[in-house]
Amino acid sequence: MTVAVQSPVVLDRLANVSIARGAPDLGHRLAALDRWVRADLVDFEAELALLPRGARVVQEAAHHLLDLRGKHLRPTCVALASRFGSGFLPRARGLAVAVELVHTATLLHDDVVDLAEHRRGKAAACVVYGNAASIFAGDWLLVAALRRIAAAGVDGLLDRMLAVIDEMILAESLQLERRGRVVADRDEYFRIVEGKTASLFRWAMLAGARSAELGASGEHALDRYGLHLGVAFQAIDDELDFRTGTGKDPLVDLREGKMTYPLVVALERDPALRVRIEAALAEPGAGDFDAIATAVRATGALTATRLLAEDHANRALDALALLPTGPARDALETVVLASLERKS
Amino acid sequence: MTVAVQSPVVLDRLANVSIARGAPDLGHRLAALDRWVRADLVDFEAELALLPRGARVVQEAAHHLLDLRGKHLRPTCVALASRFGSGFLPRARGLAVAVELVHTATLLHDDVVDLAEHRRGKAAACVVYGNAASIFAGDWLLVAALRRIAAAGVDGLLDRMLAVIDEMILAESLQLERRGRVVADRDEYFRIVEGKTASLFRWAMLAGARSAELGASGEHALDRYGLHLGVAFQAIDDELDFRTGTGKDPLVDLREGKMTYPLVVALERDPALRVRIEAALAEPGAGDFDAIATAVRATGALTATRLLAEDHANRALDALALLPTGPARDALETVVLASLERKS
Repeated sequence: MTVAVQSPVVLDRLANVSIARGAPDLGHRLAALDRWVRADLVDFEAELALLPRGARVVQEAAHHLLDLRGKHLRPTCVALASRFGSGFLPRARGLAVAVELVHTATLLHDDVVDLAEHRRGKAAACVVYGNAASIFAGDWLLVAALRRIAAAGVDGLLDRMLAVIDEMILAESLQLERRGRVVADRDEYFRIVEGKTASLFRWAMLAGARSAELGASGEHALDRYGLHLGVAFQAIDDELDFRTGTGKDPLVDLREGKMTYPLVVALERDPALRVRIEAALAEPGAGDFDAIATAVRATGALTATRLLAEDHANRALDALALLPTGPARDALETVVLASLERKS
Repeated sequence: MTVAVQSPVVLDRLANVSIARGAPDLGHRLAALDRWVRADLVDFEAELALLPRGARVVQEAAHHLLDLRGKHLRPTCVALASRFGSGFLPRARGLAVAVELVHTATLLHDDVVDLAEHRRGKAAACVVYGNAASIFAGDWLLVAALRRIAAAGVDGLLDRMLAVIDEMILAESLQLERRGRVVADRDEYFRIVEGKTASLFRWAMLAGARSAELGASGEHALDRYGLHLGVAFQAIDDELDFRTGTGKDPLVDLREGKMTYPLVVALERDPALRVRIEAALAEPGAGDFDAIATAVRATGALTATRLLAEDHANRALDALALLPTGPARDALETVVLASLERKS
């Protein structure tokens, strides 16, 4: 595995980024990031608060999830990217809200599709308000997002978002078709991750860059950053499925037959796992998924997943190296490092 | 009821439209409409055929419903409206496809929400491909529609469509909240109909008019036409719920607790019906909906519904009277008349 061979270098690189910036531990870096981006996020939240809280149940279902506040990572990406150019202007705030609304819309539809019970540690909107309200709430947020992008009037961003949503849906569809098909297919895994996760991070970087008139080479560097941040982020998400005490119910992906990266690696290294997983999926209530998770861990698949995340974190840092040094670049470096350490 | 008082006049007006145009029966009018619009619909279908038939299940679910071919009434509206101006230009074809895709997207999501088994006389997409694929298929078509509207580049149409979809979702939400609440509320009934049905007809008329550079007064007349055609269309849809041998399963709306116009009227005229309907809805498998339908008919509610449809058909014809005479106006008159006589 190429990732494994690169890994010591990758780990060194990540450590060096920390040390070179004079803030060796992530806690200090995160405090600096928070100071740097806080005013922008206050502006973002003020803009987000303008989304109507009407009397309709779709609005309640949408606000149920929005009020549980995610990490606001995608709006943070818009704000930080804009800081390489003319800054987080009013038009960029609408774009930051839009990317959070699109993300939230996909979660609402995903939770209906996955029959999810929890989201962000609370009852999922589809449990509280029903599937019908959650489906329409997702539609409502999608339209609210697109209206904001149209209103921002930044060239090319609406077309690009429509293409991104198309890509996300086709990736979700591929994942849906492959659900329960226990085959280690790396190409397919990366196609799904790039479509369903990385594409929206790329749009967030583009939105920040273009709204701040950064120019083509800056846009390109930030696009590469968004791609690799997205893959690293998803790899850690996959790893969290095998942990307890996170924001996710443990082994949810495994029980649903979703092909996560740990599973791809474990199946490559221990092909006999396939029959065991297929048998467990065939009897959802009774399958011994804990024993399978132990077998997955025994192959070293979680370490491999971390290495994959670190490899892509490294590539994201490489992309940043093309941009001017300064607090915006420091902050985006911290975002990558924090993504590797996240617990939810 | 004001509608009932107006009815003889309305019926005369509708008959006069037929006779004055020298094609007294609807069959002749429809043949003329078909000749007039056929070339445009061939162009529309060629454009619709460009929608990718990829390998993804969302694409299969979307094409399942598209291939069952609806009446293509909304694209017909785009084409006919454009004929008052510079004609059904290539940009208008994309808009005609877009309105059909938005309509199809709402049907896909509605069928999941309503747990529908049939659509257009066949198994619903959610039955054949599952709820998950149907939800994503609706999302996919919505985005495909918006991309076509963006590509057409006609001023204001994308913003207006986003506002229309917002209106449709809030109306669907209101309908969802009121489901099973057996109250005759005319204002609410019309709010729902204008939001979920008429708004998209209005957009179709606007799209045809503006793409053909018809000007503000023409746009306004066609907007009024779209509004009243939409209400008439929905009233007949409501009436069809109480008939057999149509494209819809009989009494589906009644069983789902949807507040159709016949029910609004029947509850006004026979308030005791409320308790009977509530009791039937409380035991979905066992409720005697056939007996309730008989009681609804006994109030004269279906005649009142026809009169409502005729009243709005009349208003649609009034709106057309502001536009130049000619084959486009004849054709839109026929669309209204045919909507009153439709069986599916």
